[in-house]
Amino acid sequence: MEDVLTLGGKVLKNRLFVGTGKFADHKQMGEALEASNSEVVTVALRRVDMEEQEEDILHDIPKEMTLMPNTSGARNADEAVRIARLAKACGMGNWIKIEVISDHKYLLPDNEETTRATEILANEGFVVLPYMSPDLMAAKRMRDAGAAAIMPLGAPIGSNKGIRMKEMIQIMIDEMDLPIVVDAGIGKPSEAAEAMEMGADAVLVNTAIATASDPVQMARAFDYAVRAGRIGYLSGLGPVSATANASSPLTGFLG
Amino acid sequence: MEDVLTLGGKVLKNRLFVGTGKFADHKQMGEALEASNSEVVTVALRRVDMEEQEEDILHDIPKEMTLMPNTSGARNADEAVRIARLAKACGMGNWIKIEVISDHKYLLPDNEETTRATEILANEGFVVLPYMSPDLMAAKRMRDAGAAAIMPLGAPIGSNKGIRMKEMIQIMIDEMDLPIVVDAGIGKPSEAAEAMEMGADAVLVNTAIATASDPVQMARAFDYAVRAGRIGYLSGLGPVSATANASSPLTGFLG
Amino acid sequence: MEDVLTLGGKVLKNRLFVGTGKFADHKQMGEALEASNSEVVTVALRRVDMEEQEEDILHDIPKEMTLMPNTSGARNADEAVRIARLAKACGMGNWIKIEVISDHKYLLPDNEETTRATEILANEGFVVLPYMSPDLMAAKRMRDAGAAAIMPLGAPIGSNKGIRMKEMIQIMIDEMDLPIVVDAGIGKPSEAAEAMEMGADAVLVNTAIATASDPVQMARAFDYAVRAGRIGYLSGLGPVSATANASSPLTGFLG
Amino acid sequence: MEDVLTLGGKVLKNRLFVGTGKFADHKQMGEALEASNSEVVTVALRRVDMEEQEEDILHDIPKEMTLMPNTSGARNADEAVRIARLAKACGMGNWIKIEVISDHKYLLPDNEETTRATEILANEGFVVLPYMSPDLMAAKRMRDAGAAAIMPLGAPIGSNKGIRMKEMIQIMIDEMDLPIVVDAGIGKPSEAAEAMEMGADAVLVNTAIATASDPVQMARAFDYAVRAGRIGYLSGLGPVSATANASSPLTGFLG
Repeated sequence: MEDVLTLGGKVLKNRLFVGTGKFADHKQMGEALEASNSEVVTVALRRVDMEEQEEDILHDIPKEMTLMPNTSGARNADEAVRIARLAKACGMGNWIKIEVISDHKYLLPDNEETTRATEILANEGFVVLPYMSPDLMAAKRMRDAGAAAIMPLGAPIGSNKGIRMKEMIQIMIDEMDLPIVVDAGIGKPSEAAEAMEMGADAVLVNTAIATASDPVQMARAFDYAVRAGRIGYLSGLGPVSATANASSPLTGFLG
Repeated sequence: MEDVLTLGGKVLKNRLFVGTGKFADHKQMGEALEASNSEVVTVALRRVDMEEQEEDILHDIPKEMTLMPNTSGARNADEAVRIARLAKACGMGNWIKIEVISDHKYLLPDNEETTRATEILANEGFVVLPYMSPDLMAAKRMRDAGAAAIMPLGAPIGSNKGIRMKEMIQIMIDEMDLPIVVDAGIGKPSEAAEAMEMGADAVLVNTAIATASDPVQMARAFDYAVRAGRIGYLSGLGPVSATANASSPLTGFLG
Repeated sequence: MEDVLTLGGKVLKNRLFVGTGKFADHKQMGEALEASNSEVVTVALRRVDMEEQEEDILHDIPKEMTLMPNTSGARNADEAVRIARLAKACGMGNWIKIEVISDHKYLLPDNEETTRATEILANEGFVVLPYMSPDLMAAKRMRDAGAAAIMPLGAPIGSNKGIRMKEMIQIMIDEMDLPIVVDAGIGKPSEAAEAMEMGADAVLVNTAIATASDPVQMARAFDYAVRAGRIGYLSGLGPVSATANASSPLTGFLG
Repeated sequence: MEDVLTLGGKVLKNRLFVGTGKFADHKQMGEALEASNSEVVTVALRRVDMEEQEEDILHDIPKEMTLMPNTSGARNADEAVRIARLAKACGMGNWIKIEVISDHKYLLPDNEETTRATEILANEGFVVLPYMSPDLMAAKRMRDAGAAAIMPLGAPIGSNKGIRMKEMIQIMIDEMDLPIVVDAGIGKPSEAAEAMEMGADAVLVNTAIATASDPVQMARAFDYAVRAGRIGYLSGLGPVSATANASSPLTGFLG
């Protein structure tokens, strides 16, 4: 039986979600998205040229990918709601990643406003994926508000610091009955693998791919890493022990 | 140009080395080795039935793999040398992984005796891969003694603790002009990826695969992980920053 | 000029706050509090015998300590408010540590309800110290609601896991203009020192002292550790470097 | 019964050893040594003016401290032995810290040459303390060669990186019957406390004190930290648990 993630009515075979920011140009972005094998891509509505000119970012996103527009730039729930509705009106589908950020140094999400936007948009039929500061209680509120998945940050956006909030993300994975998608902070393939080994349902990677020396190859690396971590999780990781355990027989060979 | 590792005159495309201990049976081992896509396998000479009966472990190792017999069970250089010669006499080729261990709790290698065995065997034409306790100066001595690669332990054998000796292994990778193969301690695919991201030339994994709930699938996971880490390393990991860096534009969207 | 922490109108010379749970008996607790040199102690109102019998926990708390009753057992803001008022009515002063917990496995605080209780009680003149799940935005809301200090958890209560939420706590310390008191999870003296080196204004320790083999001596250890970390922070920690820097001259001594 | 460390015939009450390099001047060094309460100080023989001029570093070392001259600058065992003999001839006592370093970037000790120097000098009646790269087998050889204590590095000298070689140092502490003094790399008071909590018998700190903004106060901080960690170790650290354990009663208070 194939391992798939069902989200917002879609059946996803690949658990790597990707972003579209910080690439050198749209062509490079398109090639990296292609190389990633990802099926879900987030894009800031701000980036989309609604006059539909040729250089629009949407032109370079592989057609078969599911668009997950995000509300980047929103400072409160109302702004996020307006951006979400606009995205839908533009024909970008009904998935929405909610980002509500008012802090300008660490770009940390505002869990309360995010929950409020989640509730409004879920009631309007959106598939809502809130980006949030890891916190079990806030995650439960977002779930109750109708979120389709929860997207806790591993570390501040674009920092490439890795999964610094591991303790709380692990608790969320263990305690929640909703998909957990680790978003923000993942800087290396090994960290994406680690998130999957922890039991995350997916990861979203943008900066680590876009700012690599070779973004297209790095996208491939993350594809492999997410598969590695997921299969590792499903295959039952062996126990960690304090002392050694011989792999090979140690009794005197020549004795 | 393809990324390959040249070692002992062989050109290797896969940088995952595997072991043969702790599997449920030879059949499971053979399937896991197959699934790993690995090209190099270590086997304790003790495990080899020199009377060549049917159940011999060698029967279940894919024929195209390079054998790297190890001297498991040796307590000093002399015993290691005798085991190596025996392996060669049995037709197991001229690769030898030197393990000299006298501590029975943590199974830590003895760097001095290992260096001594390395020198003797390299002079006899063996491709010598010494398993060692991470230490730059000891590694340089092993290189000078004729080692083909250096195999520092990440953590005690079979502990699945990960790369606990990261500081010294990173120094060895940065300072040595010989291949570094991280051996022992790697317990999860993400840790294998991490070793490769650090710049290791290969990793050897045994316990983490053999003690997984599903060793065959776990072997696949490690194959993906090693590729992920290697490609990540070659693609130039992006910089880590203290604060956040927006992936998407933040200027007031609706303003 | 002496280094002091001014909180709720009190001038504190010692930055170790302690708790009263899990001790073998009241006598041991009293001796540990004495040994800690702490000036602030938290006590669950539930523990206080309001009929004022002789075995009451308050009898064994050194008289000069400032009581910080906590609302342990409260599942929402309203219950916390009621407990706080009761504590004041019982003559326990106007400090209150707000704990609102509805999760029974990890005992994680509910930031939204905690903020609500903070606002009500701050308006009634309490010195409010909310225990919270580390989150910069939630901390800012608590500050705006009138909190006197913010008490983020380092790890789940009583887990002795250390400061697992370091990333977010460091951000809170750097970005907030209110005292930050790291509470919960600190299991070793070194971890208390580390919190202080990060710039925390104080730490609260209970389980690590009460469950030590010798709680009275462990209280002394934490007193030293908090001083060590605070002085270290004030004395300007030296820079970390990737490579070595000789402490002693290395030029050929013997020529 | 007082907790003391007996080493080379001396009974030490303070487990912080200090160094003399990198201070702004001798006066500052002297004040920092005083503030540290340390009883053992290492000094590079190179620093000592053997013509006995007034500005000699020895003038500013508190008289009651035990001198532990080191062989900094030695590139092999023979040079270390010559420096040690010279130190003794100059009246600096019979303690000697052996440093044999040939790598110029990470300043890593050479365990084999260090063992050789240890054996020669122990046979001549010196109290020998070898500085070494953490490795259980090398430590056992140094013990067998007559070392009075073993001084593994936590991280490269002067890096302030902390105890990066924790895994092997913990094994050495657990397995050796000789005092273990963690030397090099300790950059913060919390890290000194951590070494002591691990069961180290003492720590040596130099760079972290000398390069602090206020070295004299930082010396005090390390004194407190070492006491904190040692008392913590002796008082039996409480167990770490995966989930939470309530410090205070949780049953419905107002129920």
